[in-house]
Amino acid sequence: MSLEAIVFDAYGTLYDVHSVQQRCDAFFPGNGAQLSRLWRAKQLEYTWQRSLMRRYLPFSAVTREALAYACEALALQLTPERMEALMGEYLMLSTYPDVAQAMKRLQGRKLAILSNGSPDMLEPLVAHSGLELDAVLSVDEAKVFKPAPEVYEIAVRKLQVKKENIGFVSSNCWDALGAGAYGFASFWVNRAGQPLDRLGVQPRQVVASLHEILL
Amino acid sequence: MSLEAIVFDAYGTLYDVHSVQQRCDAFFPGNGAQLSRLWRAKQLEYTWQRSLMRRYLPFSAVTREALAYACEALALQLTPERMEALMGEYLMLSTYPDVAQAMKRLQGRKLAILSNGSPDMLEPLVAHSGLELDAVLSVDEAKVFKPAPEVYEIAVRKLQVKKENIGFVSSNCWDALGAGAYGFASFWVNRAGQPLDRLGVQPRQVVASLHEILL
Repeated sequence: MSLEAIVFDAYGTLYDVHSVQQRCDAFFPGNGAQLSRLWRAKQLEYTWQRSLMRRYLPFSAVTREALAYACEALALQLTPERMEALMGEYLMLSTYPDVAQAMKRLQGRKLAILSNGSPDMLEPLVAHSGLELDAVLSVDEAKVFKPAPEVYEIAVRKLQVKKENIGFVSSNCWDALGAGAYGFASFWVNRAGQPLDRLGVQPRQVVASLHEILL
Repeated sequence: MSLEAIVFDAYGTLYDVHSVQQRCDAFFPGNGAQLSRLWRAKQLEYTWQRSLMRRYLPFSAVTREALAYACEALALQLTPERMEALMGEYLMLSTYPDVAQAMKRLQGRKLAILSNGSPDMLEPLVAHSGLELDAVLSVDEAKVFKPAPEVYEIAVRKLQVKKENIGFVSSNCWDALGAGAYGFASFWVNRAGQPLDRLGVQPRQVVASLHEILL
């Protein structure tokens, strides 16, 4: 099998969201870690719940709703200025240290992002980081979030590559497994040393960094 | 509007899962609270992820997979005996103190449970608790989990009551909101004083206990 395209998740896989946590802690000293954990957990829950309810909203809106919930739950005062500043961090995230070299090594194939992020979040982010990609794809086209198969199908349609010839790379285990269940060759980047999710599928390869991906 | 049927969520709404937490702590002293929190979080995540992946498994199987994940994540040794004992707790949960009187007050209408629980979990549980209900309904019929609209539709079909004449009661905010989005009159039992979830719908009423439900 030869992979003609490699598709990457964005947040946590190529882009490090640590700076969002730092900004949370700057606004809410001592509560930054807890706030960003709850914010992230709610953000994901809302993507799954809204998908199942057939009430899709763009990721930027879901992310704002999750932040409002998290601040209320922790009794932290979220001003409009803080909301904008925290959302703004998402537009200028750094890539992980292993990204540049891995992208170089994978050249010659089509390289793309497929993210829950809406175009209003992804486009400024990719432009700011200078990553050169053949396509930046958003679930927004399918109006449903990962891990619905309709999402992964976007890559097949847009890249014009058969699914068995697409490699999919994510640091979110359930995302890698969802892509694998759809038919991609899946790579789980287990940066944090987490257990494998029990979802009835195995990734093709589990790696600790992007350097280890075997094609 | 007059409600001809009242449909309840089971776990956390009618049945108190506290005894599961106690059993966790008996097996893993000092880790019970953390284990049961992670177990519950993963159990829900897997229901949403499997629903979106179109890889439904009965709730009993999902619950076992979530427990295996949680124990591995916390480096706790899960023997087959402990797994069976913890799963067994789900079959003999106590009802909350407000359940008996609330059920009495609501009599005259059709009363039912609609739960993520699979029949192998729900039937022994209801029998053990002695609750008298007109129907015990499981998402298993629809092969998808809450909050998918296909789930709430089961109650309409089985109870033969129009959706606008069905009241739905859940202590899980997203479940109450999912039922409301589908078209039920939704009641969120906010036992723990949590913030309202941001999912673009409002419950008909937020109550602190089943006694406060206004019909």
